[in-house]
Amino acid sequence: MQKEVFSDLLKQAQHKLDRKTKPVGSLGKLETLAAQLAAIQGSLEPNIDKKRMLIFAASHGIAAEGVSAYPPEVTGQMVLNFLNGGAAINVLSRHGKMNLHVIDVGVDVDLSDSAKEASNFFSRRVTNGTKSFLREPAMTAEECEAALKAGYEQVQLAHEQQVRLLGIGEMGIGNTTAAAALFSALLNIHPEEIVGPGTGLNEAGVRHKALVIQKALDLHREKSGADPVAWLQHVGGLEIAAMTGVILEAYRLQMPVVVDGFIATSAAMVALQIEPAAKQICFFGHRSNEKAHRLVLEKLDANPVLDLEMRLGEGTGAALAMHLLDAAAKIMCEMATFDTAGVSDS
Amino acid sequence: MQKEVFSDLLKQAQHKLDRKTKPVGSLGKLETLAAQLAAIQGSLEPNIDKKRMLIFAASHGIAAEGVSAYPPEVTGQMVLNFLNGGAAINVLSRHGKMNLHVIDVGVDVDLSDSAKEASNFFSRRVTNGTKSFLREPAMTAEECEAALKAGYEQVQLAHEQQVRLLGIGEMGIGNTTAAAALFSALLNIHPEEIVGPGTGLNEAGVRHKALVIQKALDLHREKSGADPVAWLQHVGGLEIAAMTGVILEAYRLQMPVVVDGFIATSAAMVALQIEPAAKQICFFGHRSNEKAHRLVLEKLDANPVLDLEMRLGEGTGAALAMHLLDAAAKIMCEMATFDTAGVSDS
Repeated sequence: MQKEVFSDLLKQAQHKLDRKTKPVGSLGKLETLAAQLAAIQGSLEPNIDKKRMLIFAASHGIAAEGVSAYPPEVTGQMVLNFLNGGAAINVLSRHGKMNLHVIDVGVDVDLSDSAKEASNFFSRRVTNGTKSFLREPAMTAEECEAALKAGYEQVQLAHEQQVRLLGIGEMGIGNTTAAAALFSALLNIHPEEIVGPGTGLNEAGVRHKALVIQKALDLHREKSGADPVAWLQHVGGLEIAAMTGVILEAYRLQMPVVVDGFIATSAAMVALQIEPAAKQICFFGHRSNEKAHRLVLEKLDANPVLDLEMRLGEGTGAALAMHLLDAAAKIMCEMATFDTAGVSDS
Repeated sequence: MQKEVFSDLLKQAQHKLDRKTKPVGSLGKLETLAAQLAAIQGSLEPNIDKKRMLIFAASHGIAAEGVSAYPPEVTGQMVLNFLNGGAAINVLSRHGKMNLHVIDVGVDVDLSDSAKEASNFFSRRVTNGTKSFLREPAMTAEECEAALKAGYEQVQLAHEQQVRLLGIGEMGIGNTTAAAALFSALLNIHPEEIVGPGTGLNEAGVRHKALVIQKALDLHREKSGADPVAWLQHVGGLEIAAMTGVILEAYRLQMPVVVDGFIATSAAMVALQIEPAAKQICFFGHRSNEKAHRLVLEKLDANPVLDLEMRLGEGTGAALAMHLLDAAAKIMCEMATFDTAGVSDS
């Protein structure tokens, strides 16, 4: 949306909020969220009743380089856990009354037929996981494009089905390394500043991870330059590319998206380097406990909704924030004004 | 509950959480909340499905001393707004699927008969508001005791009706001054450090408010000494006393209570000075934007669930936190373990 149009809508929304029976600004972030939702939807009666969480899963070649506390096969095992309803994101999606789509964009395992038949499962496997970007590009340009398209497709489907709010989360053992490499390359942050323990590395593991990233950046710098899509292809992940696609397409269709933690933020960063105005439709669900998330959120000038010291991924932070966004929308639609309630203003 | 028993239950709960399909500790505060709920309920399957918000309302004599941005009659007008469903807390209670009780413990206005007939309204008016504590004690000892009892009664009622989680909020123009006086007296904080703009005072107003509190503390110090109940009677509020009563009775009946912002925290502080172990059942819903809330939470060693820069009161911060507590309970009950889901551990 044109910057001036968006900012005018924000002002109208804030004006409406200022007539509600409460001191001006006293609902804090809830008011900011409500105004942004109103501006995205182009309506002073924002409605995000129908919500959906998208989890993109993929395997990472870099996981073979000793950068994760968990073995690579956990990616596929967790996809089955999602389909069986037992993971944290299942619990939180049910609690938040949203449905959940699981999209396999490159999990390196044979899933059972019964899993594939689940109505909320989308088999969009581009390839059986990325290559190790310590040695070669993570994806070909065509693979990267196909993964982006898997993201576009989910947004188009949600749009057709009148879904009003999307959350994005991921599963992919090794993907904090890919995300850290992207941040390092595209925000000019030294690997040692950006690297954290992921799902649970010790100190030596963290140092090794930083070294892997430094070597990878040296290997791919010449071909990638300052091009966000080139970096996504060379050191990113299939699920990261798909989430980048979600944000770009959601911007085109003016749908709000709640970005989860460290990995999802790396996808958002790539999308915002491609299309800065897409920030209009982005909400950052939480500040995760992954060490450098605070730093990258600051660099993106992003104000996260929650800070619950979580570091799980899967969309868990986004899911909890989506309840608050829904609350914000309802504040705007349902609260009385000073006039209608007969309450004296200050 | 005995300290050792409580801490043993916390450990058992954390052990159960550590077997869930996620890296240990990766759900951050959600895990802490889940463990505390489990310990309070004495069950590793905590259940807080049925929730209730209690709003206590009362008028304040101190409001006549120019300490608030709003006129005193707003207290009664807002009670009607609560009963008509138009206030922020109504929207958030509906959104969080909890019912709402409005308890008049001393609102200085004639409420209409139709208001009094609302099934969620409790007329427990001790007196028509407190006296100005700049000049005399806010309450008599008998009035303070009656207000505490209005709090006990709501907890007993909730307990009988199988309500599993209570939130406490308030309405009372002038009550940030009463709360600040209590914090100043009982935590030894200088009035200038504790006083903030409340619902919207300007700088001169804030200075005046600090001066009013300083004079009141000088007036009541001899009679109150270090006795929390005496200070509650001399500079507190009827709704603050009622919320103190809620926490004391909820501790006796082992029911979890979510404390709202600055005012509700002052009630919690009084309760914890009377019975330190009552902290077991307290959750602090949010860090409010009222200036000194951060300081008093630190002094109480209380870790708030949310920080949304809100400063409205009414229980709004508690209501949003209650959704997260419910999420935490469900994580503990519904998530799969590494064994049942067939996921490899690290």
